[in-house]
Amino acid sequence: MKKVAVVLSGCGVYDGSEIHEAALTLLALSKNEVEYQCFAPDKDQFHVINHLTGEIINEKRNVLVESARIARGNIKALTELKEGDFSGVIFPGGSGAAKNLSTYAYEGEDYSVDEEVARVVKDFHKARKPIAALCIAPVIIAKIIGGRLTTGNDKKTAGILTKAGATHVNKDYNEVAVDEKNRIVTTPCYMVTDNIYKVSMGTEAAVETMLGLMNK
Amino acid sequence: MKKVAVVLSGCGVYDGSEIHEAALTLLALSKNEVEYQCFAPDKDQFHVINHLTGEIINEKRNVLVESARIARGNIKALTELKEGDFSGVIFPGGSGAAKNLSTYAYEGEDYSVDEEVARVVKDFHKARKPIAALCIAPVIIAKIIGGRLTTGNDKKTAGILTKAGATHVNKDYNEVAVDEKNRIVTTPCYMVTDNIYKVSMGTEAAVETMLGLMNK
Repeated sequence: MKKVAVVLSGCGVYDGSEIHEAALTLLALSKNEVEYQCFAPDKDQFHVINHLTGEIINEKRNVLVESARIARGNIKALTELKEGDFSGVIFPGGSGAAKNLSTYAYEGEDYSVDEEVARVVKDFHKARKPIAALCIAPVIIAKIIGGRLTTGNDKKTAGILTKAGATHVNKDYNEVAVDEKNRIVTTPCYMVTDNIYKVSMGTEAAVETMLGLMNK
Repeated sequence: MKKVAVVLSGCGVYDGSEIHEAALTLLALSKNEVEYQCFAPDKDQFHVINHLTGEIINEKRNVLVESARIARGNIKALTELKEGDFSGVIFPGGSGAAKNLSTYAYEGEDYSVDEEVARVVKDFHKARKPIAALCIAPVIIAKIIGGRLTTGNDKKTAGILTKAGATHVNKDYNEVAVDEKNRIVTTPCYMVTDNIYKVSMGTEAAVETMLGLMNK
């Protein structure tokens, strides 16, 4: 049975993992009879957003502890993620990918990627194991590997990805960009729709494409 | 186009809405082309649990504000939920249904239901509009209406539901209990499985059964 690592970045679209994308990723893995293990960095979130008002709350929350909500407690610190234990790794989206896993949301084109996240991406890439990234999470892959990626059809984001060293291709919610050489799979999810059913088509396509690459 | 109200109870299986059940409920509604609006009580959670360790955290969080994470900000206070605006109402599970929407988790058979939640259940029941409840959430319906319900196959929970005035029937993850007279649909979800794909079969069956009742 194949096993995939899922890297979360908190719990909530504005300061953590996009909850639907994360849950639908687990659903697509489970539906395809793939085992999974969730991971997240054990560090404070960049900030905490009140998701009702959109305002910043003067509070500290830990990325691993909040991600555990999505994982129903079954989660490990990202430092424990060893490439050798898995057939692939997947990064759901949400602002957490751009605030906690990288600095993209507040540093724009000068952004950097969390050291431990970078280590994981490099390990899987070196081992030629598939890496999938949803929504805004491809910014992580662009900075570390480059490759042929999509974040949907937003020109500004595409421009920054290109500057980071990637090639951007426009894709819709039900499509994936596949970089066969680098074994990277990306799909835009909530970057191009606000419909959860449409998002599920993207997560399912991404997981199925990953599985296809594993068998090559 | 039909519209269903979804009542959330926080964000996380141990102190709020079970995140997968909530997201999969929205997915099933969206897949069936049903519009939805999320609601939650505007009050403090019973407590806050660190989902990594299972320990209680000395912190206050608001049910509506945390539920907004699952709803991507598109949520209203439960006081604003008017039966006349919707064709049905659905309660996903998670400890929040037993800690924030009712006192079941800490008062056992002497539990009571939040006043505003009780008002909503009574309004929909009176209007003969379908009410669905997942996982442990049927405890709410048992206390207010009674009826023929399932929370899976746990004898202790079934005993308390029976004492509250309901008739309990055993059901598996892919089955629903339907009370046609009272228009109540229940399914056990994570009460009987730990597999998210199996949970999705229950949420889908519950939503489709609700839609069937709406057309009767």
